[in-house]
Amino acid sequence: MIYTKVIIIGGGFAGLKVAKKLHKTKMDVLLLDKKNHHLFQPLLYQVASAALSPADIAYPLREILKHQKNTTVLMGEVHSIDKEHKVVHLTNGIKYTYDYLVIATGAKHSYFGNDSWEEHAPGLKTLVDALSIRERVLLSFEKAERIDSNLEAEKYLNFVVIGGGPTGVEMAGAIAEIAQDTMFKNFRRIRPEKSKIFLVEAAPRILPPYPESLSKKAKKTLENMGVKVLTNTMVTNITHDGIETKNGFISARNVIWAAGNQASPLLKTLDVTLDRQGRVIVDKDLSIPDFPEIFVIGDAACAIDKKGKPIPAVATAAIQQGAYVGNLIRKEKPKSKRKPFRYFDKGSMATIGKLKAVACVGNFKFSGFLAWLAWGFIHIAYLIGFRTRYSVMLEWYFHYLTGMRGARLIHETIDTEHDPNSSSDPSIQE
Amino acid sequence: MIYTKVIIIGGGFAGLKVAKKLHKTKMDVLLLDKKNHHLFQPLLYQVASAALSPADIAYPLREILKHQKNTTVLMGEVHSIDKEHKVVHLTNGIKYTYDYLVIATGAKHSYFGNDSWEEHAPGLKTLVDALSIRERVLLSFEKAERIDSNLEAEKYLNFVVIGGGPTGVEMAGAIAEIAQDTMFKNFRRIRPEKSKIFLVEAAPRILPPYPESLSKKAKKTLENMGVKVLTNTMVTNITHDGIETKNGFISARNVIWAAGNQASPLLKTLDVTLDRQGRVIVDKDLSIPDFPEIFVIGDAACAIDKKGKPIPAVATAAIQQGAYVGNLIRKEKPKSKRKPFRYFDKGSMATIGKLKAVACVGNFKFSGFLAWLAWGFIHIAYLIGFRTRYSVMLEWYFHYLTGMRGARLIHETIDTEHDPNSSSDPSIQE
Repeated sequence: MIYTKVIIIGGGFAGLKVAKKLHKTKMDVLLLDKKNHHLFQPLLYQVASAALSPADIAYPLREILKHQKNTTVLMGEVHSIDKEHKVVHLTNGIKYTYDYLVIATGAKHSYFGNDSWEEHAPGLKTLVDALSIRERVLLSFEKAERIDSNLEAEKYLNFVVIGGGPTGVEMAGAIAEIAQDTMFKNFRRIRPEKSKIFLVEAAPRILPPYPESLSKKAKKTLENMGVKVLTNTMVTNITHDGIETKNGFISARNVIWAAGNQASPLLKTLDVTLDRQGRVIVDKDLSIPDFPEIFVIGDAACAIDKKGKPIPAVATAAIQQGAYVGNLIRKEKPKSKRKPFRYFDKGSMATIGKLKAVACVGNFKFSGFLAWLAWGFIHIAYLIGFRTRYSVMLEWYFHYLTGMRGARLIHETIDTEHDPNSSSDPSIQE
Repeated sequence: MIYTKVIIIGGGFAGLKVAKKLHKTKMDVLLLDKKNHHLFQPLLYQVASAALSPADIAYPLREILKHQKNTTVLMGEVHSIDKEHKVVHLTNGIKYTYDYLVIATGAKHSYFGNDSWEEHAPGLKTLVDALSIRERVLLSFEKAERIDSNLEAEKYLNFVVIGGGPTGVEMAGAIAEIAQDTMFKNFRRIRPEKSKIFLVEAAPRILPPYPESLSKKAKKTLENMGVKVLTNTMVTNITHDGIETKNGFISARNVIWAAGNQASPLLKTLDVTLDRQGRVIVDKDLSIPDFPEIFVIGDAACAIDKKGKPIPAVATAAIQQGAYVGNLIRKEKPKSKRKPFRYFDKGSMATIGKLKAVACVGNFKFSGFLAWLAWGFIHIAYLIGFRTRYSVMLEWYFHYLTGMRGARLIHETIDTEHDPNSSSDPSIQE
């Protein structure tokens, strides 16, 4: 007997959902991912800010799918897709044929063509990104403590987050908490609470997709935490010393990029129309024109809702798309019989710090402690369902009750460059 | 007023204990470490084997000492010690003077002069080492799953641990558990439970410092778990393909080094007598000859007990030495009035796997479940005292009850080298 072959590229929210929908079918499912784990990306900034460990928000794909016998997980990178011959080519020379192909390769950060900025302003998409940001932020305080010159130390205590979307807002809030609460009494020479944190956004307000009143609330909350929110501020250059904006220069050794997104370059091999972010413009059934057996979902797709509204690049949308496509494939529906995908907006939420968040569900907006509780509840509920573990919740409570961040580890040794203004013991100075 | 200046190099068990003993004194304490964290090294193999996350067994030195106002923590690497002028030089050009100096720089693994082996057989001393071993072990299963040739896949499913001390025994047991329990049902093509695990030891028995009956028990337990224990087997070479021993060649892509130790090269700058492992041969008060203000403790020291027995390189000995030296410094005892250091042997313990361990306390030996319980209790009790956290215990229980390993993350992407025997979809093979 010949089984229908389904290949899913990407084990994120969208791809994993498709795989799960094909459980107990007579289909032969192959899930390909560059990484061995599914990542709960909405909490990635918590790893970058040393509150959680990588293992708290990531889980092996094999483990998640171990009881699903018709599904094989392979770690590998896709090189190109040959849609005429229905073949997927991997970078190591392996190739696989499919009857259905689901592309759910997500997005990575984009520097709008200024790739040299990446060195000075890392983005936040993978666990490695998060660990590298954690390392830089923590090392900055260490370096500042070692330096005698106040002016030089100040550069290490200036933090800039570029991009006022949810990730940027969350990251700026988390750094403010690290500086003001977590590092309390940890240093003898510098005062981490004197750190300056800037959140820079080109648009007139932060959290642009949210209702304006919530943007204002978020801005005020951040300002109360000591974050300087600079809206209408377009970044024109990023160097080792800081950022240049249309309104002036900000000196900083720590810049985090949370601004642009770009879909995977793999999509170019499909030879279909892409939007400005490199995403595939899909039909109403999330398949691509002329190839009803190829679907593109999640952050890799530019999809329009039934009502003509673009579907946002958020986890809930990705999961809904995955469920929709999984059902189409399971029932092997021909294109003519497919009902258009419909996005059900479950609301948006961004946490700003300890006990503070903003959220909106339909026309209902809320902020402050209530929003934070809802935010925490939804995220933890998801993680527990996903991992059947309670330690994350405890980690959580512990972190919020004490302000301590347990994952404050620097793996590298400090660089051995000669600090020109380094503090030597005055008693032996020549 | 001029305070007595104490410099401690190294924030491990020994150094940290000295710092804590100087709490609330009128001394000016400087703790230098290359890393920003204290590491609970006895559980390092648990990170290497994906059961725990780095943050579960490491904690920022600053956080531990934050309430100790007379103590400054600086992240930095010591370049040399000038004992005549009482100066410590850092690699970045900073220098500090001291009245008392405590050197507690620990040990790293040594390849007995065969440094080229390190590439193929990483050791296990730091968190980075542990993460790199975790990465290699997990990637091996992934690579084996991708390869069609059984012969080639087998190489990835052969694991060799070199060195039959506690670390080697624990590591071999943990890999056996990963292959047999953790990976259960995770793969579709390979059978991880068919992995071969070798524990190679040059001496006639494993766990040489333990009583012979416990060595036998440990060997039998390991063999029941599927580990092949090769004693009297000296390793003569390590290559990409496996290890050469006096008794033959073992083909393997995964080799872990748990054999030799070597003290820090910094000790050479002291210009004193070192033993074969590069450790300083200290006086009975743990100071060095002619310089009563310089102490060397922990794994960096070769010390002889009151009864003429060498003091073992274990955490309890390091802590006792730290307490002893801390008290001497606090009381500013002249060398003539110092009572010799006395080591109180609290017993030894090695865990072999889930519910299995061997232990001896004085003349009392025990093994199996009872030893394991004692082992778990002592380690967790220490961690809790140290971190005031319960999540490690939960993580623990969870791991042991379910056999799952939550930290099974591969940060790298899989290499893109062309697999010569890679499995391609047969339907499209030319």
